[in-house]
Amino acid sequence: MRDVFHDEMDEIGAGVAEMIRLVAAAIDEATGALLGGDLGRAERVIEADVQVDALREDLEDRSFQMIARQQPVATDLRTLVTTLHLVADLERMGDLALHVAKIARLRYPDLAVPAEARDVIAQMGDVAKSLVQKVADVVEGRDIQLAQAIEAEDDSMDALRRKLFTLVLSPRWGHGTEAAIDMTLLGRYYERYADHAVAVARRTIFIVTGVRPSPLANGLAGLG
Amino acid sequence: MRDVFHDEMDEIGAGVAEMIRLVAAAIDEATGALLGGDLGRAERVIEADVQVDALREDLEDRSFQMIARQQPVATDLRTLVTTLHLVADLERMGDLALHVAKIARLRYPDLAVPAEARDVIAQMGDVAKSLVQKVADVVEGRDIQLAQAIEAEDDSMDALRRKLFTLVLSPRWGHGTEAAIDMTLLGRYYERYADHAVAVARRTIFIVTGVRPSPLANGLAGLG
Repeated sequence: MRDVFHDEMDEIGAGVAEMIRLVAAAIDEATGALLGGDLGRAERVIEADVQVDALREDLEDRSFQMIARQQPVATDLRTLVTTLHLVADLERMGDLALHVAKIARLRYPDLAVPAEARDVIAQMGDVAKSLVQKVADVVEGRDIQLAQAIEAEDDSMDALRRKLFTLVLSPRWGHGTEAAIDMTLLGRYYERYADHAVAVARRTIFIVTGVRPSPLANGLAGLG
Repeated sequence: MRDVFHDEMDEIGAGVAEMIRLVAAAIDEATGALLGGDLGRAERVIEADVQVDALREDLEDRSFQMIARQQPVATDLRTLVTTLHLVADLERMGDLALHVAKIARLRYPDLAVPAEARDVIAQMGDVAKSLVQKVADVVEGRDIQLAQAIEAEDDSMDALRRKLFTLVLSPRWGHGTEAAIDMTLLGRYYERYADHAVAVARRTIFIVTGVRPSPLANGLAGLG
């Protein structure tokens, strides 16, 4: 028989899954707005971020209240404490998608991304989307076998960021400093989005296995 | 009479204070390494970051164990849960100082920061240092009156970042794309360092007052 405690745990889990869906949609829409120079789409991403923020606050409060009132032990406590971390990562992923959308909006009606950088940025968007979908599978299905695939996608995001830098630093880059700054920030935003996605996956695997995952690599530090 | 519970709470508090000292030293040393083109100093910042990471892991584990074993209520529970967030922010501040040091190392024996950007970067370093010292005062002395001063310093960090962009985008910028990328990333690192410092202060004030602080502003999104 189900009890109130586990119903509430399930609802918190469903809330986390909903946050993942929202931040997955946000990065996908933000990439679309960026590559399409679509102001309306960018605005919608920016406006939708309040939902992610509200959900984080709600889930954080509920997790805290569960810990305070129910005094859960073992796996339930670990799940609730991990939820506090997950929702922080997910909120940040929402912020990063919003930052991508703001660059699209800032350059409208121009395209922020010059023609020769489109492929790399599109690939970063694809990797982000694929990564967050795998993270959803880990969190919803607790399929920890996906862990390796997630790390591999994170590596490919780092490789794409290096490719983007190579492009911008090439003598053939003819788009000036402003576009170089935009590409630098976009590269950083997608990379950090991926880092947080990996952190969510690792935290979830920690709930399942009880083994603390290795610390999140620092990713590309500076350009090094 | 003191009990084991409160001794452990005090030790966790001392650990957080130690993390603040470490990340304050890290950003100060990183700025020095950056402006002085000092490879050894940069290396020391990079190597020292493992201490911050280890302290975070230790404090996170201890806070979790306290929640699990002692089932604390009210302010003690809020303090422990908040500690989980604080140590995450502080670890990230350490990473950001490390990123600054890595840019110094990457450009050695050259100076990463061109002459006309030195003042702005030096000021960003000063604001970061002053901010984290105020955060230490909030956390150690629970002096919530400093909250306003902390927000003001965060605003001045944002203003400095805008000033840095204006410099880099000026037609007189004669240092090319590579230096523009470095300045973009440095601006971002100092800004994020400040954001996390503000988050630590707000979380601490939440422990004292029980009133949830307003959500951390997104700071400069893109360049907008």
